[in-house]
Amino acid sequence: MTRFALTLEFDGGPYMGLQRQAHGPSVQQAVEEAVFSVTGETVIMCAAGRTDAGVHARAMRVHVDIEKALTAFRLMEALNARLRLAGEAIAVLDCTEMTGNWHARFSCVGRRYLYRIVNRRAPLTLDAGKAWNVKQPLDERAMHAAAQALVGRHDFTTFRSTHCQADSPLKTLDRLDVRREGDEVLIAAAARSFLHHQVRSMVGCLVLVGQGHWEVARMAEALAARDRAALGHNAPPDGLYFMEAVY
Amino acid sequence: MTRFALTLEFDGGPYMGLQRQAHGPSVQQAVEEAVFSVTGETVIMCAAGRTDAGVHARAMRVHVDIEKALTAFRLMEALNARLRLAGEAIAVLDCTEMTGNWHARFSCVGRRYLYRIVNRRAPLTLDAGKAWNVKQPLDERAMHAAAQALVGRHDFTTFRSTHCQADSPLKTLDRLDVRREGDEVLIAAAARSFLHHQVRSMVGCLVLVGQGHWEVARMAEALAARDRAALGHNAPPDGLYFMEAVY
Repeated sequence: MTRFALTLEFDGGPYMGLQRQAHGPSVQQAVEEAVFSVTGETVIMCAAGRTDAGVHARAMRVHVDIEKALTAFRLMEALNARLRLAGEAIAVLDCTEMTGNWHARFSCVGRRYLYRIVNRRAPLTLDAGKAWNVKQPLDERAMHAAAQALVGRHDFTTFRSTHCQADSPLKTLDRLDVRREGDEVLIAAAARSFLHHQVRSMVGCLVLVGQGHWEVARMAEALAARDRAALGHNAPPDGLYFMEAVY
Repeated sequence: MTRFALTLEFDGGPYMGLQRQAHGPSVQQAVEEAVFSVTGETVIMCAAGRTDAGVHARAMRVHVDIEKALTAFRLMEALNARLRLAGEAIAVLDCTEMTGNWHARFSCVGRRYLYRIVNRRAPLTLDAGKAWNVKQPLDERAMHAAAQALVGRHDFTTFRSTHCQADSPLKTLDRLDVRREGDEVLIAAAARSFLHHQVRSMVGCLVLVGQGHWEVARMAEALAARDRAALGHNAPPDGLYFMEAVY
């Protein structure tokens, strides 16, 4: 039995989410079926993060345990061929044979996300489904200032989904940076781990600040309230990318 | 009668090209139909460039002449609403009322294109249809060196489509820069005007250099040959973006 770490890129659009779902396609099911078709083995894929329906990944880390003797390179090539043949929007960017007790989820000590906003009146064409189109002008400096209130160790109950399964709402946010590149506003978030919907909740509030609906100081108040009612809408999944799992 | 200059962004994937075609959808037809639905007027759209099937635009400049009294802002908003309703992958980024003899094609004194290559073994997911996936490692420095042989005023017969309607194969290429950003190799081209298929022909040859199939010096030889037989394959349209028209 060999444990292979895979780095996956995927377009979240066609999937109900990363995790296997009863009622629709998932990244997990597609990868497990590709592994079965290559090896004849029924495996369970473990991932560093559990992204929601429509959320993308530039570099999700997962692992699978395989009996069949295969080099990492052959496995990667065979999985990419099968995924492509099946019309899946998933690619294996890297495949590495792991030793010891390495685990895609439990060994992961850091997660990085990027949220892309295209800030213009015109609807999206080339970036349709790949970013959030916010039409009102955003003040990215106010957004960045407000974001800093969230950095550090806090009770993030305000920014937590009611479906969140984490034991505790206490998390340490290492970084929440907002910058503009032309008509794009990019929000980079890094933490050891996040609560369910935390990034999209935070982005939703930052956009309220950027539009001038919220004062900068209201972000700290929302955090302190520890109450979902203090929250704006979640940002849509289209703009969210899982960028890196750190080990 | 008012002449409006429109800046268009479009995903070239669904279209047979920018120009109206007998046998399939075009950007021109979609925009002209949107104008008709807003104004009741039958117009002819003129564009700075005539991009091929599958070629994208980040900022194509076009014009239309309209009788109906409309502000530029109202026209832009109405066109975007109609284009969206019709399911077109076209957006109007800017709309400006022009005076004098300004003409989207004849007043244009410079065109800029960008060609995107994703240089990796894994197939594309998020960038499918939006870049050329070249699997063999590319030496972007050799490509850039070879590209410099094409900069300047030359007879570009080697890099010209047999369908090219230009009077002369003489063109002045102002810039052809190759750079790498991670696994992307980006090729930026600028000239007053280009021959039909010129950018895709040049990129096809640059990739042969990048893969080591061609020596750097062979680019100058291919140019001097003035013969299509000296050419590699054209690069696919997926990676090509019309970036800017200069006036």
